[in-house]
Amino acid sequence: MAGGGDELKLLGMWASPFVLRVKLALSFKGLSYEYVEEDLRNKSGLLLSSNPVHKKVPVLIHNGKPVCEPQVIVQYLDEVYSATGPSFLPVDPYERAMARFWASFIDEKFMASWLKAGRGKTEEERAEGLKLTFAAVETLEGAFKECSKGKPFFGGDSVGYLDIALGTLVAWMHTAEVRHGLRLFDASRSPLLEKWVERFGKLDEVVAVLPDIDRFVEHAKMREAEVAAAAGNN
Amino acid sequence: MAGGGDELKLLGMWASPFVLRVKLALSFKGLSYEYVEEDLRNKSGLLLSSNPVHKKVPVLIHNGKPVCEPQVIVQYLDEVYSATGPSFLPVDPYERAMARFWASFIDEKFMASWLKAGRGKTEEERAEGLKLTFAAVETLEGAFKECSKGKPFFGGDSVGYLDIALGTLVAWMHTAEVRHGLRLFDASRSPLLEKWVERFGKLDEVVAVLPDIDRFVEHAKMREAEVAAAAGNN
Repeated sequence: MAGGGDELKLLGMWASPFVLRVKLALSFKGLSYEYVEEDLRNKSGLLLSSNPVHKKVPVLIHNGKPVCEPQVIVQYLDEVYSATGPSFLPVDPYERAMARFWASFIDEKFMASWLKAGRGKTEEERAEGLKLTFAAVETLEGAFKECSKGKPFFGGDSVGYLDIALGTLVAWMHTAEVRHGLRLFDASRSPLLEKWVERFGKLDEVVAVLPDIDRFVEHAKMREAEVAAAAGNN
Repeated sequence: MAGGGDELKLLGMWASPFVLRVKLALSFKGLSYEYVEEDLRNKSGLLLSSNPVHKKVPVLIHNGKPVCEPQVIVQYLDEVYSATGPSFLPVDPYERAMARFWASFIDEKFMASWLKAGRGKTEEERAEGLKLTFAAVETLEGAFKECSKGKPFFGGDSVGYLDIALGTLVAWMHTAEVRHGLRLFDASRSPLLEKWVERFGKLDEVVAVLPDIDRFVEHAKMREAEVAAAAGNN
């Protein structure tokens, strides 16, 4: 485990939900690491040489060897540090398959729809994005029921792969509420997820790595202005 | 293992590369299963109830429990039947991470670019797709070198996760050559992959599940005509 001769370095960007996913995984595993903030408009030589294919954060460098792509990194950490902290993926192959299935859904349907809702080029595209987002929330409510089996987390009694995959959006959800009065998980549409997100957001391991909400709201405001300017709306 | 009381059923469509991925995995593991061909214009109740989220093939039903999404299914088979046939994913966590990284690249970059090359709406879009496809091939040539370490397959001495992920395209590559004289893996651009694809295509486990090439070429011709008609090009 880290500290026992292992060197972990994370190349990230503070406001990226994909980087936060790795920070959450490291936090739950109780691993210490060096964090390097990247300027994405002027990427470092280390980032470009560590992830020549995508040139994106997050990159985790473990004893000099880079691992890229958030879900790949989380599974890597889970396998290398299997004896440390909670196991993110369940032991049972069928439950593992379900966790992987829903993690893909979170990225490919839920997050993609939400991005469209926020950054769609036309009013129509954004409205369609929001509709798909709410449909995805309802599907995820069912997924939570199925995976948690009445326990507090997707992973059961402790956080797992899906808690990290979805929980990475806590700050974004909060920002959507502050900025647009948009409550993604609410009592009528998704009562289980509403409770889950509160529970998850209060965990010490989460609080330790969540970005500062005020700074995050300011950042979101700036990004929205950029998107609006690019779309010629202001 | 299947036969020892296990019941495996695969819902598929003969020309789908994603279904072929699962057929290859089953073939390499030496598992017997019931195959159900789906009519995608009139999906069965079993498909809709087994994959209510995406309503897509492939779906593997194992003792009545459905597993969806090709890469999820291949990992599931690898974990459930770990004692049968080759292990698709390596044992070493770093090598596992690399395999997962490149599998995502194959789906998100290589296959996506190739689809764009074939089905882009404009001439310009298709040309851009082809350019990206060739760039992806060069990247994959490097991946093969890295993963195979001088051995015959991505998985080393036996086929692994990436051989299945990329090998699923053997019939498509052949069709592109027959239909358009397009040789995706050739000696100048990707000498290692050129040899790999020949080697892979001759394996008994592959020959046993590959679609009939003539039928496939006819199918591709029909699909291309449909795409052209939709684009108003004929």
